[in-house]
Amino acid sequence: MAIQKPSIPKGTRDFGQTEMARRNYLFDTIRSVFRTYGYQEIQTPAQENLSTLLGKYGEEGDKLLFRIQNSGEKADLAPEKGLRYDLTVPFARYVVQHQNEISFPFKRFQIQPVWRADRPQKGRYREFYQCDVDVIGTRSQVNELELVQMVDAVFGKLGVRVGIHINNRKVLTGFAEIAGAPDKVVDITVAIDKLDKIGIEKVKEEMAEKGLAASGIAVIEQILSLQGGFEEKLAAMRGLFNGGSASGVVSETGLKGLDELSELFGLIAVAGVSAPVEMDLSLARGLNYYTGAIFEVKALDWEIGSICGGGRYDNLTGIFGLPDLSGVGISFGADRIYDVLVGLNLFPEALESSTQLLFAVMGADELRYVLPIAKALREAGVAVEVYPEATKLKKQFDYADKKAIPFISINGSTEMEAGTVNIKNLRSGSQQAFAVSALSDILAFLAQ
Amino acid sequence: MAIQKPSIPKGTRDFGQTEMARRNYLFDTIRSVFRTYGYQEIQTPAQENLSTLLGKYGEEGDKLLFRIQNSGEKADLAPEKGLRYDLTVPFARYVVQHQNEISFPFKRFQIQPVWRADRPQKGRYREFYQCDVDVIGTRSQVNELELVQMVDAVFGKLGVRVGIHINNRKVLTGFAEIAGAPDKVVDITVAIDKLDKIGIEKVKEEMAEKGLAASGIAVIEQILSLQGGFEEKLAAMRGLFNGGSASGVVSETGLKGLDELSELFGLIAVAGVSAPVEMDLSLARGLNYYTGAIFEVKALDWEIGSICGGGRYDNLTGIFGLPDLSGVGISFGADRIYDVLVGLNLFPEALESSTQLLFAVMGADELRYVLPIAKALREAGVAVEVYPEATKLKKQFDYADKKAIPFISINGSTEMEAGTVNIKNLRSGSQQAFAVSALSDILAFLAQ
Repeated sequence: MAIQKPSIPKGTRDFGQTEMARRNYLFDTIRSVFRTYGYQEIQTPAQENLSTLLGKYGEEGDKLLFRIQNSGEKADLAPEKGLRYDLTVPFARYVVQHQNEISFPFKRFQIQPVWRADRPQKGRYREFYQCDVDVIGTRSQVNELELVQMVDAVFGKLGVRVGIHINNRKVLTGFAEIAGAPDKVVDITVAIDKLDKIGIEKVKEEMAEKGLAASGIAVIEQILSLQGGFEEKLAAMRGLFNGGSASGVVSETGLKGLDELSELFGLIAVAGVSAPVEMDLSLARGLNYYTGAIFEVKALDWEIGSICGGGRYDNLTGIFGLPDLSGVGISFGADRIYDVLVGLNLFPEALESSTQLLFAVMGADELRYVLPIAKALREAGVAVEVYPEATKLKKQFDYADKKAIPFISINGSTEMEAGTVNIKNLRSGSQQAFAVSALSDILAFLAQ
Repeated sequence: MAIQKPSIPKGTRDFGQTEMARRNYLFDTIRSVFRTYGYQEIQTPAQENLSTLLGKYGEEGDKLLFRIQNSGEKADLAPEKGLRYDLTVPFARYVVQHQNEISFPFKRFQIQPVWRADRPQKGRYREFYQCDVDVIGTRSQVNELELVQMVDAVFGKLGVRVGIHINNRKVLTGFAEIAGAPDKVVDITVAIDKLDKIGIEKVKEEMAEKGLAASGIAVIEQILSLQGGFEEKLAAMRGLFNGGSASGVVSETGLKGLDELSELFGLIAVAGVSAPVEMDLSLARGLNYYTGAIFEVKALDWEIGSICGGGRYDNLTGIFGLPDLSGVGISFGADRIYDVLVGLNLFPEALESSTQLLFAVMGADELRYVLPIAKALREAGVAVEVYPEATKLKKQFDYADKKAIPFISINGSTEMEAGTVNIKNLRSGSQQAFAVSALSDILAFLAQ
């Protein structure tokens, strides 16, 4: 066979030991927080029937699905399949398929890769992990609170200062209603989502292009220019939704949205959240299925866009035959959070090395001498390596150096005769001999 | 859109919270042992270029590869891709591709799903996890020893009694040589691999069908009927390989294999391994790329076949342009080990529930009262849920019951006035009131 120069598909990545140690640290931190809130992990298959996936992500999404060729069975008879595109649709499918085994409210999280045939570019991959936490089967704002608390706890543990932005889709609907264009909620939403990027004038232009009347645009501008703290803005909007805007239209939906926001911010104040939480009326997010709260989280000390986002949806499972289940969830952007942690140098140093101690080996007798000691240390939970060849010490030291192993043990006839083991701290240079049986002393030395 | 009855592709599985908790326990146990031996985790992408995969698993394997349809780019120009079929070929590709970043000996493990378009049947899936540990770049038998020690440690932690079977491919080559059929090593190997299943007579028949002469078959029968302990068998074989068989042929390779076995068993005796380890001359395993040690692990108290297997290979990376790197590895059969743990009832009970305490909720004031307490307990690492709706207590108790939550806290005006929190142990029925500030007392009660 001809020799092949190895490579991997465009937009995919290998993760080496350092990246894996860091990724595991990130996911374990997130997982540990989810668990303290009673969320439980599920996993779904990488392949879903194509019928489960098609039509769920818009026309563009359908094009970006990776499809699997049927094989190993009669291709005409087997249903077509595609690779998981996100974790939300498989979650909806899961809830409906397993509805009789599930206790509602169902609190689940899921950390798995997804695949999109997007054009690869910096920071955009064709395979990447999503990390979703959702609760379904309850309309209580306690769930929104818990998501905010979990975000706060995760980034607290990671040491990343974040700002949490909250809006409510019903409020956005209210905007469209009092702007006299209840059918244009999506257009208005999409336009005001760009406020930060393109400014108010461009947003107005875009709304005009979408056919919003000048009077409607004036109402939206009135809303977006509201100033003051949370309570002031809330009071001002309540007035507008109660018929106080230029159009005079009353929006019951908008008022309901304000009630939800008000309740959520009240709960946040009682429960206590360290990160700054603010109502952000320009927050809309692209996805159209949110029906209540909308969340977005940004790192305060690193410019990278949203690192977490989500919201409430009232009919996620309807397409699979289970209507009227309300849920709310949030997704942690693993790759971006990783980049923030690298950028701010927040990954713990200890992740760099998994091995604590290397036994250098000088010959067959020395090897046999250290094997039982290595075993005892491993049973005590210490990561220990025994260099597998009796080669030059220089090479063994180089190995310790490259793997950032902090302790080395070199033993020869002196130690074997005395029944001792000699351990050197490669960082401090300090060195000590221990009786082979003095396991706790050795452990204490290694813990320095 | 029409409502779809949800389902998943044949041969794939959803993992619910109980299965995930158990699978995480299994993988975490394995991972923790790998780490104490200095092995580090890597991950490779689900998709590999088809050229990386094709021709590596035989004709049958090529047919069972899941191929991805090109999309989102000019289909004719893009390389074809397939889903990972095992972890060995991606590992070989990884080592060659990243050879300049790797410190050899390179000790890696990898726990990821693989996909095969096999006909689904009981215990055989189209998506399943593999769990591989390998070291590459060293010929020392210390590596074989460590694999045996890791197997021993993993199953010790899991509480599964296992037997570890070891053979050596060079010894099998020696068999073929002294049987006068050095070109028939694969045929002989495949035949004797079936000894346990079909018996010696059928094995002889198969070898005759493959064209092995009667004199050669007699030599193989002589070997397979060797009796006695390790040292006796070793001595007897050394005699046969030294020209003492019916053919009188000397096999240097066979003698080298015996030296390796002898060294490995010597190291095992020195290092100490709890599980019984035996030399098993009928152990051959299907894979043809082993060149030295061959391993297989069986559960002693549960009939399920091999739950772990592996061996040494001398030229895994040759096809990708990096020859002469010797490695040795072993693969843990996650699904079978899972079945053994279920069958022997060895999963810890505590995995069943992730939530320790449920705060039942009677109304908005009570909710606000418990939120800060719940937060403090979560920060202390306790998994706590706050029931999100002020609904009937019966429903809240049912929820605790279904999720196997062992403690419930119900608080009303009495507790709110007294500043206490009332916690009941649902298993023992014992109940106690604590001052809200008495966090350590509450933690002690919950730890009962």
